[in-house]
Amino acid sequence: MPGSIFGQSFKISTFGESHGGAVGVVIDGVTPGLPITVEEVQAELDRRKPGQSDITTPRQETDEVHFMSGVFEGKATGTPILMIIYNKDARPSAYNDIKDLFRPGHADFTFDAKFGIRDYRGSGRASGRETAGRVAAGAVAKKMLQKHDINITAYVKAAGGIECKTINFDEIENNIVRAADPEAAKKIVERILEVKEQKNSIGGVVECRVTGVPAGWGDPVFDKLDADLAKGMMSLGAVKGFEVGSGFKCAEMTGIEHNDWMNEDGFETNNAGGILGGISNGNEIVFRLAVKPTSSIEAPQDTVNKDGKAVKCITEGRHDPIICPRIVPVVEAMTAIVLADHMKRQAALHA
Amino acid sequence: MPGSIFGQSFKISTFGESHGGAVGVVIDGVTPGLPITVEEVQAELDRRKPGQSDITTPRQETDEVHFMSGVFEGKATGTPILMIIYNKDARPSAYNDIKDLFRPGHADFTFDAKFGIRDYRGSGRASGRETAGRVAAGAVAKKMLQKHDINITAYVKAAGGIECKTINFDEIENNIVRAADPEAAKKIVERILEVKEQKNSIGGVVECRVTGVPAGWGDPVFDKLDADLAKGMMSLGAVKGFEVGSGFKCAEMTGIEHNDWMNEDGFETNNAGGILGGISNGNEIVFRLAVKPTSSIEAPQDTVNKDGKAVKCITEGRHDPIICPRIVPVVEAMTAIVLADHMKRQAALHA
Amino acid sequence: MPGSIFGQSFKISTFGESHGGAVGVVIDGVTPGLPITVEEVQAELDRRKPGQSDITTPRQETDEVHFMSGVFEGKATGTPILMIIYNKDARPSAYNDIKDLFRPGHADFTFDAKFGIRDYRGSGRASGRETAGRVAAGAVAKKMLQKHDINITAYVKAAGGIECKTINFDEIENNIVRAADPEAAKKIVERILEVKEQKNSIGGVVECRVTGVPAGWGDPVFDKLDADLAKGMMSLGAVKGFEVGSGFKCAEMTGIEHNDWMNEDGFETNNAGGILGGISNGNEIVFRLAVKPTSSIEAPQDTVNKDGKAVKCITEGRHDPIICPRIVPVVEAMTAIVLADHMKRQAALHA
Amino acid sequence: MPGSIFGQSFKISTFGESHGGAVGVVIDGVTPGLPITVEEVQAELDRRKPGQSDITTPRQETDEVHFMSGVFEGKATGTPILMIIYNKDARPSAYNDIKDLFRPGHADFTFDAKFGIRDYRGSGRASGRETAGRVAAGAVAKKMLQKHDINITAYVKAAGGIECKTINFDEIENNIVRAADPEAAKKIVERILEVKEQKNSIGGVVECRVTGVPAGWGDPVFDKLDADLAKGMMSLGAVKGFEVGSGFKCAEMTGIEHNDWMNEDGFETNNAGGILGGISNGNEIVFRLAVKPTSSIEAPQDTVNKDGKAVKCITEGRHDPIICPRIVPVVEAMTAIVLADHMKRQAALHA
Repeated sequence: MPGSIFGQSFKISTFGESHGGAVGVVIDGVTPGLPITVEEVQAELDRRKPGQSDITTPRQETDEVHFMSGVFEGKATGTPILMIIYNKDARPSAYNDIKDLFRPGHADFTFDAKFGIRDYRGSGRASGRETAGRVAAGAVAKKMLQKHDINITAYVKAAGGIECKTINFDEIENNIVRAADPEAAKKIVERILEVKEQKNSIGGVVECRVTGVPAGWGDPVFDKLDADLAKGMMSLGAVKGFEVGSGFKCAEMTGIEHNDWMNEDGFETNNAGGILGGISNGNEIVFRLAVKPTSSIEAPQDTVNKDGKAVKCITEGRHDPIICPRIVPVVEAMTAIVLADHMKRQAALHA
Repeated sequence: MPGSIFGQSFKISTFGESHGGAVGVVIDGVTPGLPITVEEVQAELDRRKPGQSDITTPRQETDEVHFMSGVFEGKATGTPILMIIYNKDARPSAYNDIKDLFRPGHADFTFDAKFGIRDYRGSGRASGRETAGRVAAGAVAKKMLQKHDINITAYVKAAGGIECKTINFDEIENNIVRAADPEAAKKIVERILEVKEQKNSIGGVVECRVTGVPAGWGDPVFDKLDADLAKGMMSLGAVKGFEVGSGFKCAEMTGIEHNDWMNEDGFETNNAGGILGGISNGNEIVFRLAVKPTSSIEAPQDTVNKDGKAVKCITEGRHDPIICPRIVPVVEAMTAIVLADHMKRQAALHA
Repeated sequence: MPGSIFGQSFKISTFGESHGGAVGVVIDGVTPGLPITVEEVQAELDRRKPGQSDITTPRQETDEVHFMSGVFEGKATGTPILMIIYNKDARPSAYNDIKDLFRPGHADFTFDAKFGIRDYRGSGRASGRETAGRVAAGAVAKKMLQKHDINITAYVKAAGGIECKTINFDEIENNIVRAADPEAAKKIVERILEVKEQKNSIGGVVECRVTGVPAGWGDPVFDKLDADLAKGMMSLGAVKGFEVGSGFKCAEMTGIEHNDWMNEDGFETNNAGGILGGISNGNEIVFRLAVKPTSSIEAPQDTVNKDGKAVKCITEGRHDPIICPRIVPVVEAMTAIVLADHMKRQAALHA
Repeated sequence: MPGSIFGQSFKISTFGESHGGAVGVVIDGVTPGLPITVEEVQAELDRRKPGQSDITTPRQETDEVHFMSGVFEGKATGTPILMIIYNKDARPSAYNDIKDLFRPGHADFTFDAKFGIRDYRGSGRASGRETAGRVAAGAVAKKMLQKHDINITAYVKAAGGIECKTINFDEIENNIVRAADPEAAKKIVERILEVKEQKNSIGGVVECRVTGVPAGWGDPVFDKLDADLAKGMMSLGAVKGFEVGSGFKCAEMTGIEHNDWMNEDGFETNNAGGILGGISNGNEIVFRLAVKPTSSIEAPQDTVNKDGKAVKCITEGRHDPIICPRIVPVVEAMTAIVLADHMKRQAALHA
């Protein structure tokens, strides 16, 4: 059944495989009159695109976005916007030797089990390249959220066992790993180059912080704001966990420690992570996600082929030794998409 | 906007406040011909109901369920099933002194911010009592999943800093905390009674394991099986985190460690937690959630009232010092609901 | 798959069979703070209930509605409202002789084909009694629409070949057939009593007019206002046709005749029926529906039983010789439900 | 709110304006493994494209379709299929003189009222050109329905007051008006050329017949098969009415006349039009729609401009004097889309 449409009042419908004709998105429900330029969307896509540094895949894609509908004289008309990114550096033939085997950590086996057919070229629809459409839609969502002066910032909190000691937003784009602490960033880069050398990869933790969300967004009991954020984040490939505010630490806390007391200036603490009872409380929204190590590694691995026979798998090709830096703009995009939807939902509730 | 409907091919629509007339659910999309009895649903509700032990609220509710439609001569007809549970031990007047203040950790403040009106009696719609409808629907979903011989088991993995050393399914219902390790259970109960004495509360971790799910369920890119499970779990009050398989531990692992290799017998490890690329891989599905300490504690706390003035809050009443034991059947129910939906979705895909 | 939920921003989830425990609705997305009383809902239900006159079924149902959630101190809280109507005058045993045959014009055959199981008592879910939930939800929707001063009036335009010559809203509730012209009403009643005597039944046309809808509601290209109204009306049992404005007459008109010209006071004509390009244009909305003759008639008919053998069918029991008068409040209710949804959708678009 | 997505288990998301970059569709939920070629889709688009004859607009568009995703080695993979049709013969400047006025019969006024902004070039999103995406999706839906040997045939039943006396499927594509009776076709073409000469236009009735649908499709109470077909048809621009089976004629019939009796060979008549209680009964499905005369006519008309001042409107440009012939393939496409959705829904119900 269809799984490539997301949202209720603001809907995105993404499409595209890694080595097909194009990837992209149809965005439905954009506020009419919203000024939106190709450059604004391109700027977000550039943060996600491959080939940015030594720790990202060398695949060469300019990821140039084209608007095909829904924007007229620089403004959204309120009708669906098709944003399309043609695949340029597709090398389908490079995948011939993996088409009949199941690469460990990849969705090869499960796509076959589900669909009975699979576009094996560069993981097809299961490729991280799918997220380009999300990032394009997220750029539009971010613009829509400006009426509330909402700021969304994601960054690498930890990777390869090295954690940021400080959180400095200004440092994030100053290092290739997008860590919020320059000291940690340095160590993480070293660690990444080390595992890359070993034909290996590493995982990490990405944190996202959002300011400016007014109290009142989120729809209990199922469409709670944190439930929808969790779904949005867990729908990203490679994400194995999601937590908001205190997160898993809450399991070791007592009620007295965990409850955020209020005084005349607002909340004294933020264990809630800005979401209480599934509804934004006006505080900074803070959540984290666990990102697994890149599945594609050049080290030889055991697996089986379509006939169930044991084979060796060596994933040559062009891969990122760590997913975290490039997932950062995707996390921001999905956050914006969820928030834009709930902004509209809250307006509908009171209409 | 509506937030009390969940699912696509199997939909549940829950209703009810803690101290209103009733709580319950309308279930739409039940497989016609499915045998279903009041007793089967009641058995699940009994596991969730209050007053089960010293570590649950003494509120007296038999939580007796009534079928009002959609079941004929013991079988589901495929039309909506209304399951209703009338509130019996409602004491609305007990909540008069909290109606104008915002209890720390509760959704009082955010419900006011969102709706501008709030049924303050026992937290109204934000009460855990809301989950009775989910449990009733989950009982039906479990029955539907029997055709695949699917077993869903949730239990307390850790609480108050004490972790299960062993996982023994047979022990779960043998201890009042629903821990999978009798030794840990004993220590956890002691810890609970201790914090209860201190007018405090504690959090914990609940784990859920599912066997029998065939490979192929889950709909990328947004409605991945783990994304929908995450949404289902994060939509439960008090849950602050969700992780599948390796979860947050993946952040410190390398690709070689994390990738689940395959051999002729299947997967050698299960860091994926049974879900690869958002699709079930036939392995056991394993996920965990972080449950915060009960917000309602009798210790005096600082907060403000509706006018923004500082006041003391003492939450007298009938509360659980820990949420974990009673959330266990709810976790199973939501898991069953998500899986039943995806069972049907996969059938639709290939029709 | 679930088919008993309707709407996007304002959702209703109905349940119930003719001779089961209850019929009713869960309404999700009601504007919080909306004042709503049992009496207001009851008044609408009383217009639909059986036993009102000589030309309606003598089944005795008070159709007393109960609010079970979502209303607090006389106001909607914004959480789901369960409205339940217990079945009182259920006589399931009266249907024993039809349980194995397919009554002509009824959904007996198709329910069996679809579900493989059927609650045959009084048509079960296929009974017109199902619409009680719609009427209850419509009463709430009507209240929500009051902020725009919207008035919805349906009436019988024609029946048994007799057409209203005049349209006088004040006359509608003055005659038992709910025709808008007292002269026509008289003749229609005579005709109804005549066919009733002949153990037969007749059909008719119901027209609905809505004033006060601002220009701008409706969401092209699929969720056009007339498309959603058409769906709402065609989802009513016995409705075989829907037309808006000029309707089927447009097929014989030319563009010069059909186009509604505008001048400085607005539209000069209303062939559009108040909806242009799927969007309300501020004019009166006018549409009609064709209602087939009641399927249940006492005259003997040919049919087959479950084994495919030819049998005679005589539908004794308590039936309306014409559906039109009692469908009038249902048409108004569905209209209100569609409009309330689009009122909220339009707010979401611009949020 | 988003209105450009249609369907539940088979979803289409269309985009595009008449004179923007492209029109098309993302199709989500296609049965994996389905063989589908560009040629098959192109064949359907060719039936809809402009410039086919003297009675269609001379706009030159080859309407060449491109698959950008979701098809691999000639088969659908089950992931979203983007089908894009680039606009070639766009002449945006031709519309400068209508950008500030509201053309009678067009959605200019309502688009402005709804969105506050409008792509006025060739009616923008309100153009019939939007339906190219529907036709492309319909071609895929038709292929999916082949497993049930379903045949969908639409044709012009009447136009300009001239009605087909016979229904001969073989004749439909033999005349430029797509009437099912060659005699009527001849007269209709004469009538069209006459009104074209008069700078006028005419309307008509399109009928659609579907064989091969098994009994059991359609989801009461809201998503009845005829309700969804009605929505699909009424969502087409220019359609003012929908009726199934007996349609509006039922209003003058009695129950004895209308009820379709059954014998050992099945139904004796088909007043139901193949749908009983909202569920297909295995009979031929028959429905009709009323198509208004083309709004764009060259005769001078009265209207107002954006400032509310009276102006004359002369719609020069390239227009069809009748919409019916080109709507025929669109009706078939929407029918296929609705049926494919319900085919999958029925499978999900029983899974």
